[in-house]
Amino acid sequence: MTDDRIAVLEQRLRALEDEREITHLLAGYGALADSGSAEELAALWEPDGVYDNDEISMVGHDELVAMVTSGRHQGWINGGAAHVNGPVKVTVDGDTAVAVNHSLMVIHEDGRFVVRRATANHWQLRRGADGWRVTVRTGRLLDGRPEARALLAAGARGQRLEQG
Amino acid sequence: MTDDRIAVLEQRLRALEDEREITHLLAGYGALADSGSAEELAALWEPDGVYDNDEISMVGHDELVAMVTSGRHQGWINGGAAHVNGPVKVTVDGDTAVAVNHSLMVIHEDGRFVVRRATANHWQLRRGADGWRVTVRTGRLLDGRPEARALLAAGARGQRLEQG
Amino acid sequence: MTDDRIAVLEQRLRALEDEREITHLLAGYGALADSGSAEELAALWEPDGVYDNDEISMVGHDELVAMVTSGRHQGWINGGAAHVNGPVKVTVDGDTAVAVNHSLMVIHEDGRFVVRRATANHWQLRRGADGWRVTVRTGRLLDGRPEARALLAAGARGQRLEQG
Repeated sequence: MTDDRIAVLEQRLRALEDEREITHLLAGYGALADSGSAEELAALWEPDGVYDNDEISMVGHDELVAMVTSGRHQGWINGGAAHVNGPVKVTVDGDTAVAVNHSLMVIHEDGRFVVRRATANHWQLRRGADGWRVTVRTGRLLDGRPEARALLAAGARGQRLEQG
Repeated sequence: MTDDRIAVLEQRLRALEDEREITHLLAGYGALADSGSAEELAALWEPDGVYDNDEISMVGHDELVAMVTSGRHQGWINGGAAHVNGPVKVTVDGDTAVAVNHSLMVIHEDGRFVVRRATANHWQLRRGADGWRVTVRTGRLLDGRPEARALLAAGARGQRLEQG
Repeated sequence: MTDDRIAVLEQRLRALEDEREITHLLAGYGALADSGSAEELAALWEPDGVYDNDEISMVGHDELVAMVTSGRHQGWINGGAAHVNGPVKVTVDGDTAVAVNHSLMVIHEDGRFVVRRATANHWQLRRGADGWRVTVRTGRLLDGRPEARALLAAGARGQRLEQG
């Protein structure tokens, strides 16, 4: 009886810890991107993780590092950039999870701040030996394209994307 | 003694789960709004729940669905819209709760993104048979109007709004 | 055996509660700032807490209250202002903690909303008799200055800032 109550507590606590770990992982993205912390940003993903964005698509840590160290990204952060995430809705299913959020990329341009991108993000994650890591992040510009809406709808339902 | 310790743990865990469930519920709003998921957005509210915004006021699921499927809302999302929420501060009191946050509505207009609205949001919620649902969401534009400031102050204190 | 399992649960739960209390504390900042709730905003800090921003630096509750009640801040909120925080990444180490996030200050100007500031925030906190409070908040404009990037990198790693 006592053992059963404790086992239930352990299970409920584990569920909260999973969500907190994922939320914590994704909350670090903006700070790592805008500080140019290339290796640490890449380490949010599994070694062969994918970041598929409408501007650029990357597979694996080396390509993620290369994105952060590229002249383009360094130009953003040297000019002033804020990758601001909206709150993440996480759906955990055993050792995999789906998360959804919006993000804004705000840049400093001509002495003022402008919103360069508003993006729909769909995240797929997996729990491995070192904890939760991103397997696939898919981002699409919220400029009316149907793909961005499909990402938000799937993410809100906790659904994985069909792999093409 | 052991039973007491377990009972305390159960109570503390329940408090965290309540806050997580509410945070999770509200975190879905933006993705549902911007993907046009009308029924699922309405289901964040109780069947007779209220969304009182300075632009429009709705009571019940049918009016919430009608808002999302309206030409006006469809125009926003076809043009590109991001309803980005700020972090929610939640105060739970038994089976009711108050939450407060900011939200930004960013739209795509003439090839760039602009902040159409910055809104103060005061949320009232209730725990029912199916979990936490919104009973009243009140939103006011942060354009200097005293009402918006009153919503933020009440929400930060965990106070419900007086019903008119 | 049972006692050990319970002790582990208590410890894990305490870790989640710490993070939740800090997240909750910081989530209130925007609502308190934009509603002009001066005393309550100051109370997020320890009595001798520091808010070091590139525009203004404050030490202690009186100076925090004075900032909120100043003509400058009252001008912002009377015109319309939204201090929107990004998600916080918190690293707790015993009775101290470090947190990092972005914030956007959106103001209403000439009938539209503009992003006046995008800021990198590094927070240091301490657990005292009344719970977690801010000891030092350091904010720097994300306009390309290296200081802002250093705040984000330190915060993402859970590192405290060296005191000058």
